[in-house]
Amino acid sequence: MMTNMTIYDISEKAGVSIATVSRVLNGSSSVSEKTRKKVLDVMDRYGYTPNAFARGLGLNTMKTIGIMCADSSDLYLAKAVYYIEQLLRSNGYDSLLCCTGYDLKTKEQSMDLLISKKVDSIILVGSNFIYEQDSDNKYIRDAAAEVPVMLLNAVLKAPNVYSIVSDDYASMREAASQMIASGRKDILYFYNSASYSGRRKLAGYRAAMREAGLLRENGLLQFYTGSHEDIHAMAGQLEKVKSEGLFFNGVIAADDNLALGAVKYAQKNGLKIPEELSVIGYNNSLLTTCCDPELTSIDNKLETLCQHLTATLMGVLNGEKMPEEAVFSGEIIHRGTTLLQS
Amino acid sequence: MMTNMTIYDISEKAGVSIATVSRVLNGSSSVSEKTRKKVLDVMDRYGYTPNAFARGLGLNTMKTIGIMCADSSDLYLAKAVYYIEQLLRSNGYDSLLCCTGYDLKTKEQSMDLLISKKVDSIILVGSNFIYEQDSDNKYIRDAAAEVPVMLLNAVLKAPNVYSIVSDDYASMREAASQMIASGRKDILYFYNSASYSGRRKLAGYRAAMREAGLLRENGLLQFYTGSHEDIHAMAGQLEKVKSEGLFFNGVIAADDNLALGAVKYAQKNGLKIPEELSVIGYNNSLLTTCCDPELTSIDNKLETLCQHLTATLMGVLNGEKMPEEAVFSGEIIHRGTTLLQS
Repeated sequence: MMTNMTIYDISEKAGVSIATVSRVLNGSSSVSEKTRKKVLDVMDRYGYTPNAFARGLGLNTMKTIGIMCADSSDLYLAKAVYYIEQLLRSNGYDSLLCCTGYDLKTKEQSMDLLISKKVDSIILVGSNFIYEQDSDNKYIRDAAAEVPVMLLNAVLKAPNVYSIVSDDYASMREAASQMIASGRKDILYFYNSASYSGRRKLAGYRAAMREAGLLRENGLLQFYTGSHEDIHAMAGQLEKVKSEGLFFNGVIAADDNLALGAVKYAQKNGLKIPEELSVIGYNNSLLTTCCDPELTSIDNKLETLCQHLTATLMGVLNGEKMPEEAVFSGEIIHRGTTLLQS
Repeated sequence: MMTNMTIYDISEKAGVSIATVSRVLNGSSSVSEKTRKKVLDVMDRYGYTPNAFARGLGLNTMKTIGIMCADSSDLYLAKAVYYIEQLLRSNGYDSLLCCTGYDLKTKEQSMDLLISKKVDSIILVGSNFIYEQDSDNKYIRDAAAEVPVMLLNAVLKAPNVYSIVSDDYASMREAASQMIASGRKDILYFYNSASYSGRRKLAGYRAAMREAGLLRENGLLQFYTGSHEDIHAMAGQLEKVKSEGLFFNGVIAADDNLALGAVKYAQKNGLKIPEELSVIGYNNSLLTTCCDPELTSIDNKLETLCQHLTATLMGVLNGEKMPEEAVFSGEIIHRGTTLLQS
């Protein structure tokens, strides 16, 4: 099998012009059935489907994938980008990354930039690219009219869009249920994102608390500062909740950074972890082993998600029919900040 | 001043063809002196130098900067990329990032990819892009023949290459001197990179220790695992040193991750920090506030470096003469892991 054939090789072997090969590849009706068959026979002989063939020929491909992420300094997003880029490289693809920030406008600009660079596909890393108001997702549907669009941990039902998600709802529901089962009733939910994933996590916490008859609207603490790194500010938010008279002996946080804010709060107030305050984080990041005691956290199987996303993309680029949505379960990793039984 | 002029505007105002404007911009000798003057006069009137003008016209620019970093999941590199991308965007430039890994071959490929995407400049983030064997730096000199190349925290003396560095040697020398002044004599140096910056840091530690008559060759501990996240493995390395009978009551680490390995080691062995073990990290990252006590660390002024790099690049792209090298001092941020006086 010749894998490095060019359109010139096909043209020569089929005895037709390059323009004719191109017309066949594009499915043009202005080619006679006989000529079309001749070209397809050459392709068949070398083991390509027309679709993969067109790409393999470099007619329509730069072997480059565009990646967009909001913020490369976010531990979760950076890790996802790292996995995806390594997987793409091992599949023979280069990647170009745009860090877009969180504004829709700059996301749209980055999308245009990547499309103009003739990428073969665009991967959106993180659920903040999907908006609740569906008209705000037009930039994704527009891109999908040109190249396949892959979503990591977000869902958008649209042609040529593929969604690979972690079941954040089920993971968070399970985490809250386990903390309740360990005897905690006053469990604060600490979060800072209202993205698709953020809303799913919150819904999971609420479901578990409602089931146990423990849901209180003032048990939700939303943290807004723009910085996901200021652990002292996060601890300060919890101080404020306490000073307002709200008792809590458990914190479930939407990411590990926020959970470390809770650990810091306990240290500053002389609260014993996990006896006087239990804490669960999310993402099972590097941060879980930095603190003392170490942080119980939900492993959302990021590497598995990235592997599946890349495999799905390779299938799509090879003209195979691939599932439009795949959902993976997370897992609670028990460490020292909880009384949970594993 | 009209800043959004096109080549068509110039052509019209100078009363010459677009091709003639283009020839003037390219310095072609086939344009009469009189015509050349007429075109340049129009340019002058609008306050542009020919160089900036050519770029401003979009003759030669996509207003896009290529960025290369070895690993987006490294906290220091990710932060640098984050600052640089924000600064470029506020200057009206898009950016395309390639995460290259640490192999020379993939670095060369990424460089080719970015050049083929017609970027206006390439920024290399981190000192691992520069090799000790100068022939390995040919890919950078080749790129600099096409576009300006900016180095963040690395130095390469070559035409059209600009270096912005933190004085890692002086920072590390000062950190070691201060730890010695606090009464420590048995100070282990813990590192995992032999990059330009890594060698400068090591040299700074050695200089301070040598000055104080304390330098021992077995006081250096190099950590190799590939993972900069496995804090338990780092702590294990220190266990091994101790079990081999080498006493140390201070650790100076080449980055904060390694320093947290030392904190973990102390916790596992019941050593009081800072009384029985003093620790200094490097980069003043998010990690410094995660542990207890919090980590003393060297702030290498990354944001300042990135600001200066971007300003230098904008100057270069506007045809201004800019300094080829700029060096910034770091600063020790005192927290709970040292007995140092600030």
